[in-house]
Amino acid sequence: MSKKVVIIGAHAAGVDAASACRKKDRTAEITLITKEPNAGYSRCGLPFVIGGQIPSFDDLIVFSPAYYKMLKLNLKKETQVIKIDKQNKSINSIDKNGATERLDYDKLIICTGASPFLPRIKGYEKKGIMSLRTLEDGRQIDQVVKRGTKTALIMGAGLIGLETGIGLQERGLKVTVVEMLPQILPAMLDLDMAKIVKEMLEQKRLLIFTEKRVEEILGEEKATGVIAGGEQINAEMLISAFGVRANTKLAADAGIALGETRAIKTNLRMETNVNDVFAAGDCAEVPNLITHKPSCSQLGTIAVRQGKVAGTNAGGGYALFEGVLASAVTKLFDTEVGSTGLTVNAAKRIKIETVSGTISSKTRADYFPGAKPIKIKIVVEKESHRIIGAQIIGGEEVTQRINALSFAIQKHMTVRELAKADTAYAPPLCETWEPVVLAAEVALRKLR
Amino acid sequence: MSKKVVIIGAHAAGVDAASACRKKDRTAEITLITKEPNAGYSRCGLPFVIGGQIPSFDDLIVFSPAYYKMLKLNLKKETQVIKIDKQNKSINSIDKNGATERLDYDKLIICTGASPFLPRIKGYEKKGIMSLRTLEDGRQIDQVVKRGTKTALIMGAGLIGLETGIGLQERGLKVTVVEMLPQILPAMLDLDMAKIVKEMLEQKRLLIFTEKRVEEILGEEKATGVIAGGEQINAEMLISAFGVRANTKLAADAGIALGETRAIKTNLRMETNVNDVFAAGDCAEVPNLITHKPSCSQLGTIAVRQGKVAGTNAGGGYALFEGVLASAVTKLFDTEVGSTGLTVNAAKRIKIETVSGTISSKTRADYFPGAKPIKIKIVVEKESHRIIGAQIIGGEEVTQRINALSFAIQKHMTVRELAKADTAYAPPLCETWEPVVLAAEVALRKLR
Repeated sequence: MSKKVVIIGAHAAGVDAASACRKKDRTAEITLITKEPNAGYSRCGLPFVIGGQIPSFDDLIVFSPAYYKMLKLNLKKETQVIKIDKQNKSINSIDKNGATERLDYDKLIICTGASPFLPRIKGYEKKGIMSLRTLEDGRQIDQVVKRGTKTALIMGAGLIGLETGIGLQERGLKVTVVEMLPQILPAMLDLDMAKIVKEMLEQKRLLIFTEKRVEEILGEEKATGVIAGGEQINAEMLISAFGVRANTKLAADAGIALGETRAIKTNLRMETNVNDVFAAGDCAEVPNLITHKPSCSQLGTIAVRQGKVAGTNAGGGYALFEGVLASAVTKLFDTEVGSTGLTVNAAKRIKIETVSGTISSKTRADYFPGAKPIKIKIVVEKESHRIIGAQIIGGEEVTQRINALSFAIQKHMTVRELAKADTAYAPPLCETWEPVVLAAEVALRKLR
Repeated sequence: MSKKVVIIGAHAAGVDAASACRKKDRTAEITLITKEPNAGYSRCGLPFVIGGQIPSFDDLIVFSPAYYKMLKLNLKKETQVIKIDKQNKSINSIDKNGATERLDYDKLIICTGASPFLPRIKGYEKKGIMSLRTLEDGRQIDQVVKRGTKTALIMGAGLIGLETGIGLQERGLKVTVVEMLPQILPAMLDLDMAKIVKEMLEQKRLLIFTEKRVEEILGEEKATGVIAGGEQINAEMLISAFGVRANTKLAADAGIALGETRAIKTNLRMETNVNDVFAAGDCAEVPNLITHKPSCSQLGTIAVRQGKVAGTNAGGGYALFEGVLASAVTKLFDTEVGSTGLTVNAAKRIKIETVSGTISSKTRADYFPGAKPIKIKIVVEKESHRIIGAQIIGGEEVTQRINALSFAIQKHMTVRELAKADTAYAPPLCETWEPVVLAAEVALRKLR
C-alpha cells in the first residue's frame, strides 16, 4: 500500500516539502491542505505588486495547477485542519462549505506558517487595521488604494513594514511609518547602518518615526489613526506590521512540543517530538549556525530549505537541515539592503564580544560612469577572529556580497583570511580592491 | 639614515607596493621608476575608453600627482632601468634625454609587468600591428579609429582581445576575431560555457573564428590582413591579443631566478631568491591555491595584492601572499562573464578528476519584470567533493557570485555544504533558490 503523506500548508515550505517527498517516493499519496483560496504563491512578492513593479497578484502564483498534477499532489484549498490526532495518526479538517473530513497519515508535515501579530493596544479591535501576509490581504489593500485613499500609516519598520510603505507611496499615498525601537530594520541592521537607510528613505519622502510606541488606535468603529509616542497621527489606511508569530495552536493542542522561541521544536531532520510528524517553514524552530541556539527567522529561503528536508525525510530519504544565518536582503526604492549572521547588537545581547569594520566604497571602478555608493559593515568575533555577521547598503550587487559573506561565516573564515581573499574585478562591475575585503581590513586593524 | 626603497614599475603592483611600504616606514626614501610617460593608471579600463563608456584616457589615471606628493613618493617617469646590480645593491637607469643615473637601494621591488606577446608568424615585423597594454597604446588605437578606420581584426579571443574587439565595434568598426584554440576565453571557461558566450557575441554581430591559427600577416610594408586557418581576412586595423609575457629580462640578467612559468620566482613574502629583492605583479609567479603549483595569472587584482605584500615586507612589516584562484570577470556587451578556480579542462590537464553541475536560472524571481538569464557551472573535485572552480554567464550579479564561490573554494567548502548554504532572497534581486546552490545540487546528484 502506498504511503500517506499529509502536509498542512501549501506555500513555500509545504509545496517544497511535497516536491521533495515525491522525488523520494513515486507512489506516496501526498495531500496538501491550505485554508487559503490560493496556494503556492510568493508572499515576498506582495509588496511589489502593491508598488506596481509586478503587474498582478496572479503573477505571484509560482506553482500552477499543472505542477500539482504533474507531481500527482492532491491539493485541498479553503480547507482548515482543526485537529491532529497523533495516537490514531490522522487529522480532521473542515472545508469552506462546512464539510468535515478525517484523513489518515503515515507522515505528517506541519507547515502552518505564521500570522501577523497585533499587540493588544487600546483600540486594537477596531475595524480597518490591515496587514500584508496573504494574497487576499494584498488584494484588499489594493482595493483600498484604488478607492482613492490618500494616507497610510505603517505600524512597524521591519522588512514588511518598509516594503509595504514604499509600495503604497509608489501608488501615490502619503505614508508614515512608526516604530517602537530606536531604529528601523532591527533584525537586520545595527543602529549606525539603520540610520543611513532611514535617511535615504526620508530623502525619498517616506516619513519615519522611531522610538514611538503605538499606544492607542483611534477612531470610532473604524481605525482612523493612532497615538504613538504621545503624538496623534491620522491616516485613512492603517497597516499592522508589528511582525509575525508562528502558527502553533494546532501542533500545541496535539501535544507537539514548542521550543523556547515559541515555534515548533524540531531536530535536524525537521522531526518534531512526535513520531512521524515533521514541521517546516515559519512555524518551525531551527538552530542558528553561529549561536547554536534555537531561532525562528521566518524567511522564505529558510522555509523552502526546511520544507525540502522535511519532505525528503517524510518520503523515506535522509536529509539534515543544519541551521540558519538568516541571510536577508531587500530593495527599498533603488537601494539594496542586506544582512547575514549577527549584528553587533544581537551579538552583544548574547554576550559575544565583537569588533566591526565599516567601509564606504563604490560598486564599480571610481572612474566608470554609473558607479554607485556601497557601505559594508563586517562583524567579527573578538576571541576567534571569525566573521560572524555582515550588513550591506548599496546601489547594486548587495545580495551576492551577502551570500559571499554567508559562505565565509558558514566556513568559519577569519577576518584575516577575508582581508586576503581572492576576488574578481572589472571596471564596469566592481573596484580593484573589493569593498568586502577592505571592510575586513578595517576590522583586522582594530584587532592588532 | 632612512631606508632606500626602489620600485621598478609604477602601476597596479608598483604603486600599491609604494603605498604599503610608506605605511610601514614613514621616513623611507621611496622611488618609483617607470619607462612610461604615465603612471598609476588602470590598464583594465583601456578597452572601455576605446568603447566610449569611459569618456577619456585621463580618467584612468587613478593616482594623481597629489597622491605621490602626499605619500612622499619619488616618481620618475619615462625612465628605463637598464641594470640591477645585486652585489652593490643598486640599479642603473636612463631617462628620455639619455641621462643615466645610478640609484642605491636597501630594498628593491621589481614590478616590471608583462608585455603583449606577438609570435614570430610570417610577416610579424610588418608595421601597424597594434596591441592594447598601455595608455599610449590606447591613444594610438583611438587615433586610428578617429581616422575613419572601418574594419579591425583581433588576433586572440582572450579577455583583452574580446574587450578590445567589442570596444572597436561600439565605435562603429566591423570587427573580426580569430582564435587558434577551439574556444574563446580559454583561461576562464570550458568549451560548453564558451560556446554560449560566443553565440551571444555573434548575435551582437562580432565575427569570431575559432580554431584558426594566424599563419601569416599580409601586406606590403604595413599589415593589411592575415591568413588564418588557410583563409584570408583583410582589415585596416590589426590588433595583437595573443596574450602577455612577464617582463623578466632585467631580473634574469641580474641572476634573479625565474620559475617554471617563466615569471620571477617568489616566496610567500614576495621575495625573490636574491636578498632584499622582491617581485610583484604581472612579472611575478605565485602559487595557485588549489594546485599549489606556481602560476602567473597576470590580473590586476592579483597585482595590487602582491604589491601590497611586497611593499609591507620591504617597509619592515610582515605579510604573506598565500596564492591565487585567478578569479576574473568581464562585461561583454550586456553579458557578465566570470570565473574562479579551475575549469574542468584545466583540472583534467593536471589529472584532477572532476564532476560538474550546470544550471540555467534567472537573476530575479521569475515573475519579477527584468529578470535576466544566468548560467552557472560548478566544478567539483571528485575525490574530496570540494568545489574547485566555477564559471558564470549572466545578465547581472555575476561578479559577487564569483567572489562567493571564490570564498567557498578558499575555505574548502564541499559541494554538499554549498547545496545547503544559507542565502539571501528578495524578488527584485534574486530567486528563492539561489542558482549557485542549485548548480551545486546538480553536481551533488552526480556524485551519489
